[in-house]
Amino acid sequence: MTIKNYNKLIEHYHSIDNFEHLNAICSWDQAAMMPSGGADSRAEAMAELAVHLHALHTAPQLAELFESVKNDELNESQQASVREMQRTWQMRTVLPADLVKAKSLAGAKCEHQWRTQRVENNWQGFIKNFEPVVKLSQEEAQIRASANNLTPYDAMLDIYEPGMSSGELDQLFKDISSWLPQLIQEAKQIPPPATHASYPVKQQELLAHELMTILGFNFDHGRLDTSVHPFCGGTSQDTRITTRYDEDEFINAMMGVIHETGHACYEQNLPTPLNKLPAGKARSMAIHESQSLFYEMQIARSPEFIALISEHAARHFPNYASINTTQKLQQDLQCVTPSLIRVDADEVTYPAHIILRYEIERDLINGKINCQDIPELWDNKMSTLLGLSTKDNYKNGCMQDIHWTDGSFGYFPSYTLGAMYAAQFKHAMSQSIDIATQINNRDLTPIYDWLNTHIWQKASLLPTNELVVKATGSSLNAQIFKEHLQQRYT
Amino acid sequence: MTIKNYNKLIEHYHSIDNFEHLNAICSWDQAAMMPSGGADSRAEAMAELAVHLHALHTAPQLAELFESVKNDELNESQQASVREMQRTWQMRTVLPADLVKAKSLAGAKCEHQWRTQRVENNWQGFIKNFEPVVKLSQEEAQIRASANNLTPYDAMLDIYEPGMSSGELDQLFKDISSWLPQLIQEAKQIPPPATHASYPVKQQELLAHELMTILGFNFDHGRLDTSVHPFCGGTSQDTRITTRYDEDEFINAMMGVIHETGHACYEQNLPTPLNKLPAGKARSMAIHESQSLFYEMQIARSPEFIALISEHAARHFPNYASINTTQKLQQDLQCVTPSLIRVDADEVTYPAHIILRYEIERDLINGKINCQDIPELWDNKMSTLLGLSTKDNYKNGCMQDIHWTDGSFGYFPSYTLGAMYAAQFKHAMSQSIDIATQINNRDLTPIYDWLNTHIWQKASLLPTNELVVKATGSSLNAQIFKEHLQQRYT
Ligand SMILES: [Zn+2]
Ligand SMILES: [Zn+2]
Repeated sequence: MTIKNYNKLIEHYHSIDNFEHLNAICSWDQAAMMPSGGADSRAEAMAELAVHLHALHTAPQLAELFESVKNDELNESQQASVREMQRTWQMRTVLPADLVKAKSLAGAKCEHQWRTQRVENNWQGFIKNFEPVVKLSQEEAQIRASANNLTPYDAMLDIYEPGMSSGELDQLFKDISSWLPQLIQEAKQIPPPATHASYPVKQQELLAHELMTILGFNFDHGRLDTSVHPFCGGTSQDTRITTRYDEDEFINAMMGVIHETGHACYEQNLPTPLNKLPAGKARSMAIHESQSLFYEMQIARSPEFIALISEHAARHFPNYASINTTQKLQQDLQCVTPSLIRVDADEVTYPAHIILRYEIERDLINGKINCQDIPELWDNKMSTLLGLSTKDNYKNGCMQDIHWTDGSFGYFPSYTLGAMYAAQFKHAMSQSIDIATQINNRDLTPIYDWLNTHIWQKASLLPTNELVVKATGSSLNAQIFKEHLQQRYT
Repeated sequence: MTIKNYNKLIEHYHSIDNFEHLNAICSWDQAAMMPSGGADSRAEAMAELAVHLHALHTAPQLAELFESVKNDELNESQQASVREMQRTWQMRTVLPADLVKAKSLAGAKCEHQWRTQRVENNWQGFIKNFEPVVKLSQEEAQIRASANNLTPYDAMLDIYEPGMSSGELDQLFKDISSWLPQLIQEAKQIPPPATHASYPVKQQELLAHELMTILGFNFDHGRLDTSVHPFCGGTSQDTRITTRYDEDEFINAMMGVIHETGHACYEQNLPTPLNKLPAGKARSMAIHESQSLFYEMQIARSPEFIALISEHAARHFPNYASINTTQKLQQDLQCVTPSLIRVDADEVTYPAHIILRYEIERDLINGKINCQDIPELWDNKMSTLLGLSTKDNYKNGCMQDIHWTDGSFGYFPSYTLGAMYAAQFKHAMSQSIDIATQINNRDLTPIYDWLNTHIWQKASLLPTNELVVKATGSSLNAQIFKEHLQQRYT
């Protein structure tokens, strides 16, 4: 009788996954294929699908089914399945529909107007739309906090990074803040002079395909295409990544491809039998980012892989060798320069951008500061962490990101958590694998095997901390990240 | 109260259309983009969507809503909307679920095994799977016949060609059969010798885009891609056509593109306000085919358009001019040669292939012949109509098409009905437009305007016969088709 109920749960979540599949493919199409005139009817169709998915995710019978399987003798994987189902269900059902709708409308308005207000440096205009978004996000945080017995900000963090707390983040980021400014000073370099050459898109695509193949991307289960904003989408059986090309240089597109390939390899190697269940999905935003950053930072920016890139690039780009050398490429890929824009930041200065955002959004959601306080706080923190001023420069300061415009508070820490996890995985992997030699020998298989065993195949079967402890022997540790940066940049 | 019910119907069909949109895009992706490893999970997702769509199409509350709006004062377009809703609803609800499932299983098995059995010329193996498909199709036809007071075959025909009857088809096809063999004799030619050259895919694509633009395809609302089996898919706001390229010759891909562009222009120009309702969809299979064949046969194979093609091809293919001339291209495009395979048939012999299929499927569904009778009937009719034998040649005889394997009886007549409608539209259009001069002047706008006014904007607002009478002044008339063939080929 109860196993029957467990099977009902499985069936329901398989059904959800089928509609999520359609959603993933149509979203990819929207970004990578759809002609502009298809936008309106696509938006309508996707909205209808979102309503349908919401109904499936919050189906009232799920509460009874969860209750009915509570005393079942389920194996570990089944228990993890039910736990993750309940987690995603609770995440979606805890908010009143009115609040969800109000936040979605306020967020859409704020984001839409932000696109022009940012260009115009119009903080006064922006804050009018932004304040309602913050107020509704605070309400959301309050409700989630009561339901989960957390502080408001921790309840938001829990959406993206289940199990993480601001207590732990405060400590990790305090540690980083204590040594980062000094390390940046030591690592700082004037960027190498730009060289002018033409890198045909066709050739860049060939290079991207070669590197993706070396990096373990399975083209039987995925594709590379182009879109304005590069992303990794699709499903774990059919993983779609995108990049965008600029014929004046090849590094941005290539590094974007390598980053998304890290996301894609995680998706492609999630455990097949659990593919369609919440427990079989990627663990969290930070763990996802740890895989893309493992590929981008730990593998691709290593001297050994830079040499490999240089060798392949020389084959594809005419005149490459005359203006590029492995040494020049290494300078390009390892240059540290404090700048105002997060998405352009290098590996060393990136955490500073995240820490300042984290401190502001935490205090904002916990009601300790107001929206009006943000520009000054931003300017102060930029000055302390990177020695730069954003006074009156809203567009390259607190208005530069899309994340807050629709109320995605709690997301930013994932980036730096991902970078720290990546360094820690590399460190643990180095105990059993000579990574540099493997790359020099063009045999990365042991690297993928390690990731597959310790991360990819684990999906969401374990809570994040347990996953990390099992893989590396300890909880997340900022010291390893520091050592990685010191070793590479000083 | 009742207008409220009418609006409920509109809302329900908008919702159906949103899910049909997802279905169209994911089907296109499956054929044109999906990597092979994505097939299984895509099949699952599409099956789930099909179940959901079936539930929406057959929702029990629709019966009451149709009843409740019966005495409403609806305008003409609203009446057409309700009529088409009811027609599609009745089509789907009349069959018992068990029969639908049994036919779908039997059809899938027959089609799957046919793929190898055809290659092996294995009629004995095929008939074992085919007989159950025919039996279930006969059951389906019986049920549809009783519900609509039609003969069994007419009830099947009604699925694809509402309002058409075998009485009318018998007459039209008897007429064609009386003059076609003679006309074929007069038109018959030895195919021009093949010339060898290379036509790079990239250049064929450029040519295709140019011709599509000339033919009125709107690239803001559509795309051209490649797939194994060319088709026109997507939605009316985002119409996706495909072709496949062969670097040894360019004509097949190009004519395929022109054909699909005809389908696409119909879709792209359906009336926007009705886009998401059954009354705003294309009228029928034959009318759809009339648009693709208007483009392919009436426009593109005219001497004026062949000259235009030749001019464009010369710009794209190196050495084109040295081995091709407009005259040579005209020979290629207007060569008449009886052959065994329908899909390779020219404009003149094509109707023979359809008439023989029609006569066989009509008698089969009406229970007048058995599956075992098919090969001999096929051979006799091929001999009478085209002077060819298919004795013991099942694979290039009665096993050549996919249509019957899953029980799509009643579909074949659409092809020749489409060709006849296309000739009749051309004839009517010629009363007010000098088509040859317009093509010579590279200004096809009046042609599209005529089609837009008389066909495209009419969608399913009128029954087919009324549509045709309003557009051309008379019901479908085989004589006009005959004159077209005589004029071009004798
Ligand atoms: Zn990423
Ligand atoms: Zn067609």
